[in-house]
Amino acid sequence: MKLLSETIAAIEPASEEHREAARRRIEQLTMPNWALGRLLDLAVDLAGMTRDLTLPVARKEIVLMAADHGIVSEGVCPQPSSVTTQMIHNFVAGGGGIHGLAGVAGAHVTVADFGVASDLSELTATGAVLDYKIAPGTADFARGPAMSREQAVACLEAGISIARDLAPATDVFGSGEMGIGNTSPSSAIVTVLKGASDPRPFVGRGAGLDPARLDHKAAVIRRGIECNRPDPADGVDILAKVGGFEIGGIAGLILGAAMLHRPVVVDGFISSAGALIAATIAPVSRDYMILAHGSAEPGHRAMAELLGKQPLLELGMRLGEGTGAAMAMPLLDAASAIINRMATFESASVTTEGLKE
Amino acid sequence: MKLLSETIAAIEPASEEHREAARRRIEQLTMPNWALGRLLDLAVDLAGMTRDLTLPVARKEIVLMAADHGIVSEGVCPQPSSVTTQMIHNFVAGGGGIHGLAGVAGAHVTVADFGVASDLSELTATGAVLDYKIAPGTADFARGPAMSREQAVACLEAGISIARDLAPATDVFGSGEMGIGNTSPSSAIVTVLKGASDPRPFVGRGAGLDPARLDHKAAVIRRGIECNRPDPADGVDILAKVGGFEIGGIAGLILGAAMLHRPVVVDGFISSAGALIAATIAPVSRDYMILAHGSAEPGHRAMAELLGKQPLLELGMRLGEGTGAAMAMPLLDAASAIINRMATFESASVTTEGLKE
Repeated sequence: MKLLSETIAAIEPASEEHREAARRRIEQLTMPNWALGRLLDLAVDLAGMTRDLTLPVARKEIVLMAADHGIVSEGVCPQPSSVTTQMIHNFVAGGGGIHGLAGVAGAHVTVADFGVASDLSELTATGAVLDYKIAPGTADFARGPAMSREQAVACLEAGISIARDLAPATDVFGSGEMGIGNTSPSSAIVTVLKGASDPRPFVGRGAGLDPARLDHKAAVIRRGIECNRPDPADGVDILAKVGGFEIGGIAGLILGAAMLHRPVVVDGFISSAGALIAATIAPVSRDYMILAHGSAEPGHRAMAELLGKQPLLELGMRLGEGTGAAMAMPLLDAASAIINRMATFESASVTTEGLKE
Repeated sequence: MKLLSETIAAIEPASEEHREAARRRIEQLTMPNWALGRLLDLAVDLAGMTRDLTLPVARKEIVLMAADHGIVSEGVCPQPSSVTTQMIHNFVAGGGGIHGLAGVAGAHVTVADFGVASDLSELTATGAVLDYKIAPGTADFARGPAMSREQAVACLEAGISIARDLAPATDVFGSGEMGIGNTSPSSAIVTVLKGASDPRPFVGRGAGLDPARLDHKAAVIRRGIECNRPDPADGVDILAKVGGFEIGGIAGLILGAAMLHRPVVVDGFISSAGALIAATIAPVSRDYMILAHGSAEPGHRAMAELLGKQPLLELGMRLGEGTGAAMAMPLLDAASAIINRMATFESASVTTEGLKE
């Protein structure tokens, strides 16, 4: 609890001074006013986060957190929980979608067990997977809290610890996750934070649920919210009652990164649920979030609105693993390259005639 | 004329056989059905274009074609034509926005003079700029044709020649341009191809025209279309009457690349005008076009519709130079990485239970 409260207390807003300096720099570059649009907004954001006009983004770390979910027993998900474990082995072998995309982004991938139902000690012993297992899967939140408040704090603090441990060699974090069933807690979180009584608008097919089962999935989530009554003003309470261990880990990663002035590229639907928990616990942590892409999950739009963020990419993706974060990372490199490599009107002897009022 | 007609005759549709093989491959990869959305559509497109399931996209070449425009004398543009020349020098020094972004994409940039009004022989002599100058700027198309039909064919064939010359060391082309005034011919081209009498919905601020001058710009373009009466079914005629030399060059680059089974990442508003000329001349050339991004210029949406393409990125960019093409290129690498590096359900021993009908 001490690590969490200290982290929350230490998070500062992004630096308006560095944002303004970036704006001034951009206005001198050889292009019409703000002609690279949102790429320049991103450059300003990165300056404010990093307090560094060179926009350091070269060293990228995607933290892929995995856990299982008791809610799967309610028939909300077509796949068995065992797939989480199978996919962990696939990740360790470098065969996940994230590995191809992280390669393109120049990002390192760290896999962490936050609560996979199986015994992964063989993989954690070699360091192939970090061991932050809170418990072998959450409880079924349709019948009671997903986890205790102590467990919720533990997964938040584990996420913070990962951020602190990796920060010395990391300029930018990306979030990623794997956990069969984790769209259900994510839909529950956005429902609670929207203050909605009906989760149905925020419920989607996840890994491929039969559309005829969507009403059932929504009813299960609704039951979970009604029986647990999470306090929408208390992020730890929401996480404990209807969340997931990896979702708490993502929230902790964001809080830790924010404290350390490191940007976090938030992946899709499940990562945004973690971001919402972080934003509820420490609203200013939003200053360090970059929303990678708009997920194909229907509830993601409401999440982006709650976070006050527009996704960088819209590609109809819904895989998770951090794949969206990896896809968005070259845009950060692009923002940095513009600030660092583009000539100014003065240095290039290009007239500003017609461009300046 | 022979090169143009031979090229048109040699363009084949994308390979449906390779598209289908890519689809089958993707369905075996360890993810829910089509969970990477448009990235997988892009992978299928690339397979069909390249006829190669490894999706070769590593060697990227952005061809930045520059020219000046007689229409500038009508007061449609806040900047003087001399800025085109100043920017060419900026490009040769590596100080353009495109240079930072091409670096991120791993793309080479080739600059070609298609009709800059100034003498660039010092730069073409060293090979820093390719010399395809048709004439020192087009004529004012508000008062007659921008160029002769022979000149239109010449810039198309120059673009084809560039594609042929660079293809042996190029997997993917990107289009780029620089030319003060070139939004006006681009707006004219989309107006003609939409069959619209009023260009106003397709007219934007370009490099920063005073919004109060937009009606004037539209009136000038309208006058240009009315006095020239381009034939909407004849791409060469449209190019000659209301186009530009670099726009013809882009169209030629696309035709040449299509003939050689090379994907072309089409940059923004002006490049899409070139793409529309190519599509009018040889409709099947669209099979090789990838629309990089949706430009902030209001006419670009109509262009995308005419091309039947959805842009990959929407970032409010409007710089040109090939910057949007460079920004989109990592997505091609990502598509290739997914196909080449991701494990299959079988190779990774991941069950397909719940995923397959």
